[in-house]
This record gives sequence, structure tokens and C-alpha cells, in this order.
Amino acid sequence: MVDVIVIGTVAMDDIETPFGKVTGALGGSASYAAYSSSFFTKTGIVAVTGEDFPREHLEILKKRGIDMTGLKKEGKTFRWGGKYKFDMNEAETLKTELNCLDHFNPIIPKQYKNANYVLLGNIDPELQLKVLDQLDNASLVVTDTMNFWIESKKDKLLEVIKRSDVFVMNDGEARQLFETVNLVQAAKKALKLGPRAVIIKKGEHGAMMFTPDSMFMTVGYPLENIKDPTGCGDVFGGAFIGYLAKTADLGEMNMRKAVVYGSAAASYNAEDFSLNRMKDISLDEIEKRFHEFRQIKEF
Amino acid sequence: MVDVIVIGTVAMDDIETPFGKVTGALGGSASYAAYSSSFFTKTGIVAVTGEDFPREHLEILKKRGIDMTGLKKEGKTFRWGGKYKFDMNEAETLKTELNCLDHFNPIIPKQYKNANYVLLGNIDPELQLKVLDQLDNASLVVTDTMNFWIESKKDKLLEVIKRSDVFVMNDGEARQLFETVNLVQAAKKALKLGPRAVIIKKGEHGAMMFTPDSMFMTVGYPLENIKDPTGCGDVFGGAFIGYLAKTADLGEMNMRKAVVYGSAAASYNAEDFSLNRMKDISLDEIEKRFHEFRQIKEF
Repeated sequence: MVDVIVIGTVAMDDIETPFGKVTGALGGSASYAAYSSSFFTKTGIVAVTGEDFPREHLEILKKRGIDMTGLKKEGKTFRWGGKYKFDMNEAETLKTELNCLDHFNPIIPKQYKNANYVLLGNIDPELQLKVLDQLDNASLVVTDTMNFWIESKKDKLLEVIKRSDVFVMNDGEARQLFETVNLVQAAKKALKLGPRAVIIKKGEHGAMMFTPDSMFMTVGYPLENIKDPTGCGDVFGGAFIGYLAKTADLGEMNMRKAVVYGSAAASYNAEDFSLNRMKDISLDEIEKRFHEFRQIKEF
Repeated sequence: MVDVIVIGTVAMDDIETPFGKVTGALGGSASYAAYSSSFFTKTGIVAVTGEDFPREHLEILKKRGIDMTGLKKEGKTFRWGGKYKFDMNEAETLKTELNCLDHFNPIIPKQYKNANYVLLGNIDPELQLKVLDQLDNASLVVTDTMNFWIESKKDKLLEVIKRSDVFVMNDGEARQLFETVNLVQAAKKALKLGPRAVIIKKGEHGAMMFTPDSMFMTVGYPLENIKDPTGCGDVFGGAFIGYLAKTADLGEMNMRKAVVYGSAAASYNAEDFSLNRMKDISLDEIEKRFHEFRQIKEF
């Protein structure tokens, strides 16, 4: 029995930032998001990886109790390479080898069917739709994406958004998808597609959540040392849905809390490469930062 | 009797943004800051302008009850020209005609000598120092600056910061002045120079205030329509010091409130060119937005 299903990629990443580099590191939207969600509740992955995927990477996910029934293994692992400059706000993609992702047909395992919370992590929107077709009863579908799909499969992506309860994007994606520089305008256009809430992640500048009749904003956690922002958006989404699944309260005030839990978890993730920092922490650390968010914004 | 002294420029601006343009509009750091401070308390200007300065511009400042005893008139008015692109975060300076600013020697009028709150608005740091030399008893000296002085008079600027209680800069200036991309690190370096608080303005992304043992962050007000961000930093500083002068409470929690009042006032200023939007509002509107800031960040 899992509470949260995460669909996305399980990848090997080659990443360079001004503070170091890693090769073949554990990455992918499903890895980051499921890891983060697992701090809050029982989480299962739906993804594909290659037969060359290192056992120690798998062990990292298993150790957190993530259900891997939905992880297929075939061919070569999806590989992503990226480089960050000093401002760290956007990666330059240097490499995208789809490999096993090319013919992936996601199947929700029987054991996952009662899960009420679904995170459609960043992956081809056609695959996101295939997952949605297999799930009739989910209480909450949260969808994330990336610029690549806005450019190549915008129509399919809009279809996914229409069928989602919460749509999450970053500021650059919001501007690109809704063709406006203004984030409030972008969020309003996104809400018109149907989701009950729209979240815009602004990296170090925090996050905004819009519903048809409310607006919530949180600052970003003031990190003094950032090593690698890869996966922070996925970690945000994972903690967001994990907290909601754990509390089973979709009221607006609780969703605001979920945004802050997402921000707190993501802030840890930026402190080291791959899932290295997340491996060090427990829910206690996330709670601690959640409370710092409260103190920081008080006036 | 004035409570707040504002030193800075009183200028005519030629500004172009994607949403329009103005020529010879009322501008300058002292105009914006004094106007904003005057919503909270009695404010006097120390500045110079030209004999060609339009009477209707002066009337706008006088109508708010700003004391103009410290405004000298000679030669030609300082003129600034700038252009903003779509992201509106930074102006490209197209024109800087110092004119009457060239030989300005700021004198604090006798009537201002009992003022306890001093805003050293953006102007040559040598002039800021001359003002400081004339004021022994101020309870609070707040200093603002801009990139131009970081490039041309860094040593003098550092001297001003050392003699200030609160130093205010924007994120770009913080990175430039303290040679680090990380704003927390920049703020710590600034605090080491001596001020009791350091504020970093991040435009649409809000503001941060650091003291030796606390950190405060506020989001930016989510504006749907921004016409011209010119003067927003000055309006922030004016409302910040005006609120503190009015409440005469320099405790950290009250300074946090002052940052939010500064942010609320600045958000109005961005809605139109020059002081056009500020002319429409009263303290009630600023209070209203202050309370929206509370609601927006609640979780």
C-alpha cells in the first residue's frame, strides 16, 4: 500500500556547478520527488531505468522505504548533463540521452491503485496522460513540467494541466507557457485551465500559490552555501504532496503549509550534489527549517 | 520642525519602459523618498535643483507638506534618462547631466537641527558625509546608494556605511559592493562595517533585513501591472524611515514592520510613472496593502 505515487524519471546525471562536479550521479525527477515525499508518507515510484543503473543508487531509494514495484528496468539509463553558472538560477543542458525513456509505457502496479495522491513529475506529457488514464479516483493530482515540454509538446501539456488539481511550474516556465512576463497574469491564465491551485516556484526567491480566490507567497530560505540546485523543484513537489497525503487536508491553509514544507526540503537539497544532502537529514531537520520560515517572515 | 531629513537629488527624468514614456518628469531620490516619508511624518528636504525646475513639480512636493527650506535653487536641474526592458529589474542609464549637482554643498537648515531621523538618499557619498558632519544627535541614520557610487567612490561609500545605523542597497549593489553572488554573505560583510541593520531590496522579489542576530524576509507585493519602477527604492527608504520616526520604536519587530511599510509604498509607486500613482493615494491605501502583506504570507 502506498499513499503517494510519483511518476517521473530515474536518471544518471553529469553536473557541473562553480562548486564542483559529479558524473553518473543519482538523479531524475522521480528519484528526487519520491525521496522527498518519503519523509512524510509511503511513496511508490512509476518509472523506467536501464539495466546499467548502479545498484548503490537503487539502494539509496530503497533505504528510505520507497516502493519500487513500479520501476521497470530495460536498456540503458536516461542520462542528463547540465552546467550551472554563478547565479545558479538556470541550468544549461549539455546532454539529454533518452535511452530507455524512448519507449516507456508507464503502468500503475495493482498495489498502487488505492493511492489517493499522484505526483506527475517532470516527464513527457504524453506519459503523464497515460498515467492519468489509469487513475480514476485520485484525490489529488499534482503536475510538474519543464521548458523542454513547453517547447515540444505544449498541446499535450495543456491537456495534462486541465486534468490536474495542482499545477506546479517555475517562473521561467510560467512566462514561457503563458506568454507574459508577469507572474500574476501567468498564474491567472493557468487557473483558467481548471486546476484548483497553481504554484510558481521562484528558486532562491521562494514560491507563490494561487487559487481562484487567494494568493500565498513564501520567501526562499536564505542559504549561505548552495552547491547544486538540480532536483530542487522535484524535491519541492515531493514534500508538497507527501505532506498533504500525510495530513489528508486539502484546505487552503494546509496547502500553504505544504508549500513551505516543499520549500524547506528543497533548500536542503541545494546544499549538495545529487541526493547527498537529503541522505543526511530526517523529518526533524525539515520541521526545523519549516519553523525558521515562520520566524523569518514574522512582522 | 521636521522629524525626518531627506538628503538626495531633485531631478527631471526622461524615462522609457515597455508601457510608455515621460520627459522631464519629477524625479530624484529626495523627491521620491521625502514624498513617501511624508505619509507618516513631517519631512524636510536637503537638496539642490535648477532655476528651470518646473513650478508644478515643486507644488507636488509642497502639497504633501514637505518642508523645502533645505532646497537650494541654482543653475540647471540634474537630469537623468533611463530605459527599462521587459523584465523591469534594472534600468539602462541613457543620460546623466549633473548640472547643479556638480558644486552642491549641502547645508542642514537650522530648522531641521532637531530632527532625529536622517535618510541619506542616493547621491554622491562625499555629500552624504558632509551631511553627517553637521548632525551629531540623530537617533537613526539610514543610507541608500547606487551602483554608480560603488564603481566611482567605493572608499567614501564604505566610510558612510560605517557611520550609518541602517544601510540599504539592492541585490545587484550588494553583490557588486561585497564581491559575492550570495546575498546572505554580502549582508554579513556589510554588518561587519558597523550598521545595526542591513537591508537588501530585491525589487519584485521583496526585501531582506539582517541584524547581527536576526534575519527578516518579506516577499514583494504581487503586482499585476507595473509601469515604471523608477524611484521604488527611494520610496521604500522614505516609508521605512517615516514609519520609524512616527512610531519612535527602533526595536527589531518594529523595524520589520517598517520594511513592510516600505515595500507597500514602493509597490504603489511602480504602478505609474514619476510620482503619479503616489499622488493618488493616502496612508489608508498603504495601510491596506500592509495588511495584504500579512495575509499573503500567513501559513
